[in-house]
Amino acid sequence: MKLIAFDADDTLWVNEPNYVDVKEKLCELLSHHIDQETLTLRFYDAQIRNLQVFGYGAKSFILSMVETAIELTNGAITGAEIQQIIDVGRRLIDFPIEVFDGVPEVLEILSKRFDLMVLTKGDLFDQESKIARSGLGHYFKHVEIVSEKNEQAYQRVLQRYNVQPADFLMIGNSLKSDILPVVHIGGRAIHIPYAITWAHEQVADEQLTGKSFTTLGHMRELLDLF
Amino acid sequence: MKLIAFDADDTLWVNEPNYVDVKEKLCELLSHHIDQETLTLRFYDAQIRNLQVFGYGAKSFILSMVETAIELTNGAITGAEIQQIIDVGRRLIDFPIEVFDGVPEVLEILSKRFDLMVLTKGDLFDQESKIARSGLGHYFKHVEIVSEKNEQAYQRVLQRYNVQPADFLMIGNSLKSDILPVVHIGGRAIHIPYAITWAHEQVADEQLTGKSFTTLGHMRELLDLF
Repeated sequence: MKLIAFDADDTLWVNEPNYVDVKEKLCELLSHHIDQETLTLRFYDAQIRNLQVFGYGAKSFILSMVETAIELTNGAITGAEIQQIIDVGRRLIDFPIEVFDGVPEVLEILSKRFDLMVLTKGDLFDQESKIARSGLGHYFKHVEIVSEKNEQAYQRVLQRYNVQPADFLMIGNSLKSDILPVVHIGGRAIHIPYAITWAHEQVADEQLTGKSFTTLGHMRELLDLF
Repeated sequence: MKLIAFDADDTLWVNEPNYVDVKEKLCELLSHHIDQETLTLRFYDAQIRNLQVFGYGAKSFILSMVETAIELTNGAITGAEIQQIIDVGRRLIDFPIEVFDGVPEVLEILSKRFDLMVLTKGDLFDQESKIARSGLGHYFKHVEIVSEKNEQAYQRVLQRYNVQPADFLMIGNSLKSDILPVVHIGGRAIHIPYAITWAHEQVADEQLTGKSFTTLGHMRELLDLF
């Protein structure tokens, strides 16, 4: 193994629950305008639509919240209410990073034997800030932030570091972004599921047919594999 | 010279005028609420404040426009008006890229003799989209998008590609981002000024004292230097 890459959000630290909290706060702020179920559905539609335009990350999420609030109130929402929504969304920029149990020990041990990389998708500014806030940066020789984790993105990263797919291991919580594209290009992948997966990251069971990867229950079990 | 890097916005293609146009459109949209001079000043304040939180790029610019509109109307602006502002801002995501005269010829010639890189700061999603829309991507062996172009960022890039500063040439329109940090780390820099420079990118004359770099009037003049 020449290069071991870790996904960041919900693999090294808690991320998705912060987004769920902010979305719940949006429901509260708009509760006198709209019921929670309609809001949830329309907000998801806005997020997916805006992925094509704004990409992943906190700023895109905030813009989708604002657009959904305007849409569902037929434009009647006031600027003051929109500022409240933006202010709630700003929490996504600087929430304290809660590193998962066992992660620093595992990184400490593996970083002595392997080149480690953070390989995450999302907003550059946002992800760099989370890595800095996590205090884990020094375990990683490389940091790669990409706009989408598909086969092309993994191939570009491997080319850049002159690593063959067979010498590459990816560890992450998302079957869609961390596991399947890596398996498809001939790399090795270890799936460590997290309790919450954003709907957009879910994959149908049949997509996993014939795919070979390892699933672990906890980051610490990584050490048994080496 | 082992590596020649080009800034993108306002070096390879027109960028800033698109932002100026959108800001003028914001003035028009808000003209019944606020005079243009006040808006311009307060919008600049919001942009600088939000740089720390949201970074550079179109999404950050849009959020600053929305916040400024809310602030200057004391929250009275309607959701419908805010949606108009967001829609104007969306132009920054997909405006047609106008490549500067001479750029493709110069890249065609230099790419045969040197490794070329696009080295730009800003929003990852945004900048990748502009590179793709420019049709210039195939001239560049490497693309690096960083959140800030300071000395540390240049040092990280040179380390990653194992290039000594003396073997590195940076070409760009911003003294602050493309020229001074490169000169400070011992690299070579060529300044090709553009007609419009965002206030935040301007540097005082005294910062240039004792700094050695070349200024060209046009990208084509690069060919005379090699």
